[in-house]
Amino acid sequence: MKIGGRHYRTIWLSDDGWSVEVIDQTKLPHRFETVALKSCEDAARAILTMQVRGAPLIGVTAAYGLCMALREDASDEAMDRAIEYLAKQRPTAINLRWALEEMRKAIRNLPRELRVEAAYKRAAELADEDAETCRLIGVHGLSLIKEIAARKKPGEPVNVLTHCNAGWLACVDWGTATSPIYQAHDAGIPVHVWVDETRPRNQGASLTAFELGSHGVPHTIVVDNAGGHLMQSGKVDICIVGTDRVTANGDVANKIGTYLKALAAKDNNVPFYVALPYSTIDWTLEDGRSIPIEERSADEVLKMPGRLPDGSVVTVEIAAPGSPAGNPAFDVTPARLVTGFITERGIAPATREGLLSLYPERKDA
Amino acid sequence: MKIGGRHYRTIWLSDDGWSVEVIDQTKLPHRFETVALKSCEDAARAILTMQVRGAPLIGVTAAYGLCMALREDASDEAMDRAIEYLAKQRPTAINLRWALEEMRKAIRNLPRELRVEAAYKRAAELADEDAETCRLIGVHGLSLIKEIAARKKPGEPVNVLTHCNAGWLACVDWGTATSPIYQAHDAGIPVHVWVDETRPRNQGASLTAFELGSHGVPHTIVVDNAGGHLMQSGKVDICIVGTDRVTANGDVANKIGTYLKALAAKDNNVPFYVALPYSTIDWTLEDGRSIPIEERSADEVLKMPGRLPDGSVVTVEIAAPGSPAGNPAFDVTPARLVTGFITERGIAPATREGLLSLYPERKDA
Repeated sequence: MKIGGRHYRTIWLSDDGWSVEVIDQTKLPHRFETVALKSCEDAARAILTMQVRGAPLIGVTAAYGLCMALREDASDEAMDRAIEYLAKQRPTAINLRWALEEMRKAIRNLPRELRVEAAYKRAAELADEDAETCRLIGVHGLSLIKEIAARKKPGEPVNVLTHCNAGWLACVDWGTATSPIYQAHDAGIPVHVWVDETRPRNQGASLTAFELGSHGVPHTIVVDNAGGHLMQSGKVDICIVGTDRVTANGDVANKIGTYLKALAAKDNNVPFYVALPYSTIDWTLEDGRSIPIEERSADEVLKMPGRLPDGSVVTVEIAAPGSPAGNPAFDVTPARLVTGFITERGIAPATREGLLSLYPERKDA
Repeated sequence: MKIGGRHYRTIWLSDDGWSVEVIDQTKLPHRFETVALKSCEDAARAILTMQVRGAPLIGVTAAYGLCMALREDASDEAMDRAIEYLAKQRPTAINLRWALEEMRKAIRNLPRELRVEAAYKRAAELADEDAETCRLIGVHGLSLIKEIAARKKPGEPVNVLTHCNAGWLACVDWGTATSPIYQAHDAGIPVHVWVDETRPRNQGASLTAFELGSHGVPHTIVVDNAGGHLMQSGKVDICIVGTDRVTANGDVANKIGTYLKALAAKDNNVPFYVALPYSTIDWTLEDGRSIPIEERSADEVLKMPGRLPDGSVVTVEIAAPGSPAGNPAFDVTPARLVTGFITERGIAPATREGLLSLYPERKDA
């Protein structure tokens, strides 16, 4: 998508042909900077420190991290070590391990001298596939927005609420939850997005608002507390969020707070959709109770970066001095609260049967 | 309650015998400062800018504001003008109008030369009554905490989740939602409080954490998004919140986001109690749909005050530049989600009958 009129992806191969560049998302929205990743360690650090974040982008970044590890040592042992090292950086996002296993499949049976080239080829494919997958999610999700628009007065916007950033910055391009929004906007359907701030890291106010604004999509930032009231007041037509992991029964792990919005949507008969690529489905887990929930640093709650009037960026302490903080990064929304899934294959109910209707090949798995 | 070992109320008469002093709550938790209110306009500004906040404290501050207006002009016209002026500063909190009507009752039939003295006397009574009311709320609420503690292993804390600041800083002393917590702690019952940060003004992380910490009560700050996950994980035994207005059927207006926590409590069978003095009940409204919801400045969402490492306090912009924000300050939690009310008279279900069982004198009203 576009920033300042120029088309970007979130990750791309550098001119040297082997290192990669990413948009440093810890600097957004205050500064737009790119950072070069020149080793497996660089890629791991970018994932851990959330210079790259969002399940699909983490997967592609890890894939390139593995490429760079193989350049130094293409042995099975080095490959296994790098995969484990990269996978452990973020425990909740299933795409990370999925992407690394895709990479393993592509290289494990090759002689060592062919592995690096094959790895880069597969990593590039993963990036291209993600962009295309997200585009297709948007094509299917657009039908939901069109249906709502058809019930509105001409010119009246479809109000979408989203949580966190399941935008193109979380992917390679288009985004998951935002892809239907961008495609509706580009098709001339009036849309307005309620952007949940998404504490503690403010990915909504920082990233989703930034990318919607850059693309010209009308939006309003609200605190995470506001969504329930907005739904009670009839100001939300549809919720669309992303996910870090969906289990076989349709339970949804996503950014902390998603569950609360799903409860409010259910209580107010607002459709609640989860947009995801197939790679986010964890067929090995029966339900959401067994998804590991990452506990992150208390500093993310107690401190906040921001711009001073002179444009400089500082981090301030915002809470009562000496008070401790807890920081669970994800929660699990039970499938019963989810109206449906939007994937690259279409839309289906949030049930085992719904998922299998989209991915019938899994019936025999 | 105590700050730095010294007992404070949130508002007190100055040595001059006519102006009042308050703790400037916009400076907390970064600095502890008091501010003198020397006119009706000062009192109104303190209410509007939230130097004082919390429904009971707003009411007492307005009462003293009226006293100061009467010192300048004790006519009926001046009284009516001051009451309307003070009442409009915050539209949602019912105590504000309630306290002003109590003042009107105490002075309207007096000759002008006796009005000022009577007004100060009634304002002081309102402050004392609020402190005693809050103490009694704690006595009744303590029974709920004791019941939970009795089911726990010895030494295992009762985990209470609260939202915003319904603490003593919101009242004159003790607080409403925090009064049972302080009384349990003082009685040696182990309690631990999950403190919702409470965006956008962070009254939880700033004020509730500050006052619990000052009193030595174990607590953990969490973002507003986290409560649902904590309840799903069995880490919350009881929710206790305050309220700005309860309608005759038991609907509860409180800080934005309360509704989301009530939904999560219901979904996880966690008891959800609302602590309030009788003055917070609006018997004139049938249900919560007619409660006016204050929309506050977008700056409260887009900017945040905090401490730099050198201790200085600055305000930073935290969101994507140019993105607009919405800021509804309250939401309405339907009575069906509330387990019960804790008032100075006891505990009752959140229904019309429950409220009337505590206030039978209202049956004939």
